[in-house]
Amino acid sequence: MKRIEIIQNVLEANESIAAQNQRLLDSHNVFAINIMSSPGAGKTSLILQTLSKLKKKLSIAVVEGDVASTLDAEKVRNEALAVVQITTRYMSENCSLIANMISHAIQSLPLDDIDLLIIENVGNLICPSEFILGEHKRIVISSLPEGDDKPIKYPMIFAGADAVVINKIDFLPYVDFDVPSFQNTIVNLNPTVKFFKVSCKTGAGIETWCSWLLNEIKTNQPVK
Amino acid sequence: MKRIEIIQNVLEANESIAAQNQRLLDSHNVFAINIMSSPGAGKTSLILQTLSKLKKKLSIAVVEGDVASTLDAEKVRNEALAVVQITTRYMSENCSLIANMISHAIQSLPLDDIDLLIIENVGNLICPSEFILGEHKRIVISSLPEGDDKPIKYPMIFAGADAVVINKIDFLPYVDFDVPSFQNTIVNLNPTVKFFKVSCKTGAGIETWCSWLLNEIKTNQPVK
Repeated sequence: MKRIEIIQNVLEANESIAAQNQRLLDSHNVFAINIMSSPGAGKTSLILQTLSKLKKKLSIAVVEGDVASTLDAEKVRNEALAVVQITTRYMSENCSLIANMISHAIQSLPLDDIDLLIIENVGNLICPSEFILGEHKRIVISSLPEGDDKPIKYPMIFAGADAVVINKIDFLPYVDFDVPSFQNTIVNLNPTVKFFKVSCKTGAGIETWCSWLLNEIKTNQPVK
Repeated sequence: MKRIEIIQNVLEANESIAAQNQRLLDSHNVFAINIMSSPGAGKTSLILQTLSKLKKKLSIAVVEGDVASTLDAEKVRNEALAVVQITTRYMSENCSLIANMISHAIQSLPLDDIDLLIIENVGNLICPSEFILGEHKRIVISSLPEGDDKPIKYPMIFAGADAVVINKIDFLPYVDFDVPSFQNTIVNLNPTVKFFKVSCKTGAGIETWCSWLLNEIKTNQPVK
């Protein structure tokens, strides 16, 4: 079972680097969130809404993970204090960000000036569930047009989430999506998860999401 | 660069098994398609529409790849001649189907009785682009709510597709999706690709998609 052993070693090495990343972030009082979803569920849109709402209260930096292109980094560049682009296309691990990539990315950031680091993972519900990065909170976005069966089909990513953002809530009249059933499936996997219903298009629910985030950042700060 | 070598070997081994799969399918005159997309883009819905339209003309079997659950296999069970479920959750390669899984799956199918084998890959735009399975045609589904930037962000899967099915076309009034620009981006990567605009909900465009598929199956049959 050589191959499984190799994978196990990769995951263990990743966890050790993730722990180093978190220690470094903590020493500079930087709170980090890892945003994960399917392609097109609204990661960049949620980041843009969050920047727009919180940039006067917090210094926010963004790490953009993409398989190819700098499209998302360009979108957030004017709103964030700093943006680092990670393009995974030519890396052997190209289906997820891994802790080592974040370790390099945060070395280039002015950590003392940053309150919140938002990491946008690549669009994938599978690989990112296995690789922690050093983040304080793991956020999964699920959008209504994807269907309410996603937690049954991709349980690991929902089981490991601190919060699930249900995006494109304005599509409710046009799609068959049973919100209570979707939430129940996730609660069975993960009883302490938080839910936020938002529309990044209309701005609905963004205030509540941002209040929760602000409170989490405050709770995480060391007692002086 | 040990890790990259390992990955290279894995891909080479996969290609060799995929070629064996295709030879076996050809020897039984079975045409195989590999359907790939983001989670929730409509793989199972397209398969159900295709079964409904073609099951009187062809004997169709389905291989269902899922990270977890047998939800999709249950949906197609009554419509297909045979269904094989592959659940990748506890495998070390869990982010895509690989040729070796298909090799096992087709051993359990009555190949002499099958005209068309539809393989539903796991919902992922990244890993499936690297792993061929032995299929004759590679189909990518992209749905309007995902946004028209997906070929820029996940170019490899579109570059390797024989056909791109643009699903949820009934959402056009509700989303910003520039269909010609989306198609142009893909044609730049892949000049010979075919496009089909469909709604698996309303049935629009399914006739054209099925005609193309029938024609491809006919073209692939050996001259007697």
